Amino acid sequence: MSPVSTSVIAIHGGAGTILKEKMTAEQEREYRETLMAALMTGYEQLQAGKSSLDAVEKAIIIMENTPLFNAGKGAVFANNGEHELDAAIMDGSTLESGAVAIVQGIKNPISLARIVMEQTKHIILGSKGAEQLAIEKGIELVGKDYFFTEFRWQQFQEAKKKGEIILDHDSVSDDNKYGTVGAVALDRKGNLAAGASTGGMTNKMPGRIGDSAVIGAGVYANNATCAVSTTGHGEYFIKHVIGHELSALMEYRELSLIEAARIVITEKMTALGEYGGLIAVDRNSNITMPFCSKGMYRGCVDKNGQSTVEIWK
Amino acid sequence: MSPVSTSVIAIHGGAGTILKEKMTAEQEREYRETLMAALMTGYEQLQAGKSSLDAVEKAIIIMENTPLFNAGKGAVFANNGEHELDAAIMDGSTLESGAVAIVQGIKNPISLARIVMEQTKHIILGSKGAEQLAIEKGIELVGKDYFFTEFRWQQFQEAKKKGEIILDHDSVSDDNKYGTVGAVALDRKGNLAAGASTGGMTNKMPGRIGDSAVIGAGVYANNATCAVSTTGHGEYFIKHVIGHELSALMEYRELSLIEAARIVITEKMTALGEYGGLIAVDRNSNITMPFCSKGMYRGCVDKNGQSTVEIWK
Repeated sequence: MSPVSTSVIAIHGGAGTILKEKMTAEQEREYRETLMAALMTGYEQLQAGKSSLDAVEKAIIIMENTPLFNAGKGAVFANNGEHELDAAIMDGSTLESGAVAIVQGIKNPISLARIVMEQTKHIILGSKGAEQLAIEKGIELVGKDYFFTEFRWQQFQEAKKKGEIILDHDSVSDDNKYGTVGAVALDRKGNLAAGASTGGMTNKMPGRIGDSAVIGAGVYANNATCAVSTTGHGEYFIKHVIGHELSALMEYRELSLIEAARIVITEKMTALGEYGGLIAVDRNSNITMPFCSKGMYRGCVDKNGQSTVEIWK
Repeated sequence: MSPVSTSVIAIHGGAGTILKEKMTAEQEREYRETLMAALMTGYEQLQAGKSSLDAVEKAIIIMENTPLFNAGKGAVFANNGEHELDAAIMDGSTLESGAVAIVQGIKNPISLARIVMEQTKHIILGSKGAEQLAIEKGIELVGKDYFFTEFRWQQFQEAKKKGEIILDHDSVSDDNKYGTVGAVALDRKGNLAAGASTGGMTNKMPGRIGDSAVIGAGVYANNATCAVSTTGHGEYFIKHVIGHELSALMEYRELSLIEAARIVITEKMTALGEYGGLIAVDRNSNITMPFCSKGMYRGCVDKNGQSTVEIWK
């Protein structure tokens, strides 16, 4: 065993009914470039000897700051026309974690989640309490206008008309290609980290807390097993405690990362007619990114330093 | 195997530094009587052929309605002088669950959690969104005065003075003997259910969401393994995803309920210097109630119909 680990990182921008034929070449290029920018931002942290936590946070910030994905700037509308954001981050070396739930007016929820982890005695902070912490810690605040995008507004109007709750990427008109975001990484010291950030589901009930704020469901990291971030129908991931389930399959059934993820997503999730996916890495620099939907925005830099960005299967 | 299961139920009213020498005979009698009343209320549901979900909800309501425990009426003060309540319930036969987080003005959060499970497409609802649902569904609302108890107020003043966050039962002056509440049950049909309700930690930050609102952490139920409800330092239970961990130890390491709970609480939690406990039942009518604190308010009716209520070891 080498004294240092080979750094790897994987990111996702959501899974869903992403149809290639509905996407223009220009749109596809924009997604690929943004995913690559997020990936490289995270990977540079690892290359510079920074922690997997830094890599995860920095990669997610890039995705939160673009309107392309359902997180931060690109967050979907809840059924009251507001934006309520969830995010979480977990340190696999200590099992410490932090999360924020249904927060408003926060530019980068992932950074606030990290502050909850590092600067409070709590793990999950919700709503006004979390927003108060953001003010105290000088986290960047934004007005409601910041989150307004014409595309999301139309998506919301369409969902309201149909009386549907829809995942951001779960298409009303087959051309919604957005999703939640997440990142997982292994740093040189062999420490794993995972994070996620989201605006939730279009037309969701106000107050709905999704898997991205739930440690063990949408986000989990443990140096003994894996770092994982999920995307798709959040309630499914909470119900089956997917983050911790993946870890338990590795720890107690001694499955490999790849096999455990295959069972959880390709086998169980598909059998249940659910859809979504996950990205995960282990301490041996293995990466897996299974999904059971038409597409998943994703990318990784593997142990050979090879970077890839993909959308479809 | 008999076609019907032998119903069992277990409840807890919190774990912590409960000192026998600080409790008057009158106080002890009051705790024991209230625990027995909650236990019998739940058990009667099971005897009448009702579901384990009904038993769990009804037993918890009794404990929410007394000032003795840190849930509902007896909830502790957050550091802004408000009461923010968490609760969750889970159905082991379907893995469906519902939770409410940081809600105010709700008399029985456990019933609202059940409404989230049965009448919405979501699992966890927080803050104003959950309160709005309560109004729509006609759940009983109460004013702030309802939650005011002189004892809690003094406890809060003392904690503020010391600048401490304290678990309800984690004594400042060694005479705080209150705690969160929970229940687990197995009904005649062989279905397991689990629930929890709490006011959280005295002097906690507003917005803090504890393990009682987190499926997989403070509450978990799965007919294939167990129904479990935890009490103690909530952040520990979230960090180690204890509810699902117990289930995974049974499912993947094929441990018995008793052995899995012993590892989780008596071994790991004690080794980490944490304290708390859990109550759990399995589909074979086994019951376990381990804790690694001075005391835990608890009670059960076992497969022989024998009822017991205990406070200390």
